[in-house]
Amino acid sequence: VDEFSLIERYFDVQTPPASVVLGIGDDTAILKPPSTQDLLVTTDTLVSGVHFPAETHPAAIGHKALAVNLSDIAAMGGEPAWFTLALTIPDIDEGWLEAFSASLHELARRYDVSLVGGDTTRGPLSITVTMIGTVTEGKAIKRSNAKPGDAVFVTGSLGDAALALHCLQNDIEIDAAIMARLREALDEPMPRIDEGRILRNHASAMIDISDGLVADLGHILSASSVAAEMLTQQLPLSQNVLEATNQAKITTDRLIQFALTGGDDYELCVAVPESQLSALQQSWSPSLAPLTRVGTITTGSGLKLYDADGQSGTSAATGGYTHFDEHTD
Amino acid sequence: VDEFSLIERYFDVQTPPASVVLGIGDDTAILKPPSTQDLLVTTDTLVSGVHFPAETHPAAIGHKALAVNLSDIAAMGGEPAWFTLALTIPDIDEGWLEAFSASLHELARRYDVSLVGGDTTRGPLSITVTMIGTVTEGKAIKRSNAKPGDAVFVTGSLGDAALALHCLQNDIEIDAAIMARLREALDEPMPRIDEGRILRNHASAMIDISDGLVADLGHILSASSVAAEMLTQQLPLSQNVLEATNQAKITTDRLIQFALTGGDDYELCVAVPESQLSALQQSWSPSLAPLTRVGTITTGSGLKLYDADGQSGTSAATGGYTHFDEHTD
Repeated sequence: VDEFSLIERYFDVQTPPASVVLGIGDDTAILKPPSTQDLLVTTDTLVSGVHFPAETHPAAIGHKALAVNLSDIAAMGGEPAWFTLALTIPDIDEGWLEAFSASLHELARRYDVSLVGGDTTRGPLSITVTMIGTVTEGKAIKRSNAKPGDAVFVTGSLGDAALALHCLQNDIEIDAAIMARLREALDEPMPRIDEGRILRNHASAMIDISDGLVADLGHILSASSVAAEMLTQQLPLSQNVLEATNQAKITTDRLIQFALTGGDDYELCVAVPESQLSALQQSWSPSLAPLTRVGTITTGSGLKLYDADGQSGTSAATGGYTHFDEHTD
Repeated sequence: VDEFSLIERYFDVQTPPASVVLGIGDDTAILKPPSTQDLLVTTDTLVSGVHFPAETHPAAIGHKALAVNLSDIAAMGGEPAWFTLALTIPDIDEGWLEAFSASLHELARRYDVSLVGGDTTRGPLSITVTMIGTVTEGKAIKRSNAKPGDAVFVTGSLGDAALALHCLQNDIEIDAAIMARLREALDEPMPRIDEGRILRNHASAMIDISDGLVADLGHILSASSVAAEMLTQQLPLSQNVLEATNQAKITTDRLIQFALTGGDDYELCVAVPESQLSALQQSWSPSLAPLTRVGTITTGSGLKLYDADGQSGTSAATGGYTHFDEHTD
């Protein structure tokens, strides 16, 4: 089996849309971008043993490699369109490739994105996806426009993925059905594309939460030269997280830490001007992930956390997750 | 040093052109594509120990990671515009990063391409570049349009990189100045962007030679449902290759094999209709790499090689380089 038939068999399976003039199989893809749209481009790599445990199911890896890139497009309020896949694998394991590619294609179909090119190489397992999306000219939501007085919201719930990883790594036994749902949050996060489409009409700044809420909100704060206050009791926690925390005898403080600094949530964190709040509320449909207000943008710098008693915690300037800190701290 | 300051220090150094609305530092880049142009997208990964020896100088790795992707844009007759860099490194070695990024930026400046996003992760050394280029609507040169009677040309010379690798791997001693020039062909190939710009006005089919002439011309032949005849004595060999071959006592047959099947040349192989030959000749400027006719497209399938005596060799259907065959044969 050579590289070429490998690529064709597992990855050249979609019927391309009209925007794909030429897909996989030439020196480059040829794409027709829609007129009067800006392009959005993002790249994310997942390395085995760093971004996922080596024993992770290939279906989860295929899903996540695409999902984390879709999440970046969502965080700009964009429409995902095309992606390339650079897949480095230690050997050709057809069962692995079958599960990986099926899951990747399933998520691609769901968001109508086309695989237009790739490179399959031999080496330690790692996956790099580059996603190209579009957005109406000038309408992408950056990190840099949050203003004092804006409300801070997050979609979905926080800490599910971090708690799942914690339970897995420490062999903590909890109810299997609950663990399965937490594991889904870790392995198969759903990018908030639909939510981003609504938020782009109302938000002043937006980011996806890949490194933890404190770190990622921190990027909005520094890019916008503002501060924020957050009430930790308002952090959205899922029923799964609450039950698992209870079973695993994890303290509330620890739980809050997962929600604040756990990576891999892939929810959106967004700043919304007061003047947009009622319009946003009206356009939010029940089919979307819940949207929870967690704080307010203020003047100054840094993030101030208040606990249930309204007491100020320490200023949470750091606490995020970075790939290097993780291994060297 | 965390991931973010790492990226900024070494990679966010260019003054972006007007087409880059927002560069590195948000969830995605925001780009303004020129109107009435198609987009060209390609991805290539280099893995340490597979695509380059582990001890390769970081400047060579930085150059090559970008060059191989520029070469794919050249092979469509396109204009390279923007790229992303997914860099996986075992640890933060500032000297390595300095040399790698300086060389990458030097080549980027030469072809006026902008680094617009990336992801730096910890893991076994590997580099994935995704390049986006543009070409006038409908004007990209694919592999699939070669016709019987078309002349087959290659740019530059063949076998330099393969011979360099052979000498390195077998500790063959040749003159240092010659070895340095061969090594440059292996480590720092120049993408044929300028040549592709001229060829796109005349060619029926084009590809870049990354896996060896036989394999890559083979892709044109199968995509176009045609055959070709090639005279091995017409293969363009550099003065360096001829001198090194002489010094290393390598047979002519072996030399021809390097030129036919050696990977990493990154020259262009192109089919040109007879009706375009004089126009092509007139537009070829002396500042470009030499263009050498090596054969002719015919009806049927496969590639027929003729040696110096006009004798037909075996039909060279295979013989190319693939990343998996390399290790499993």
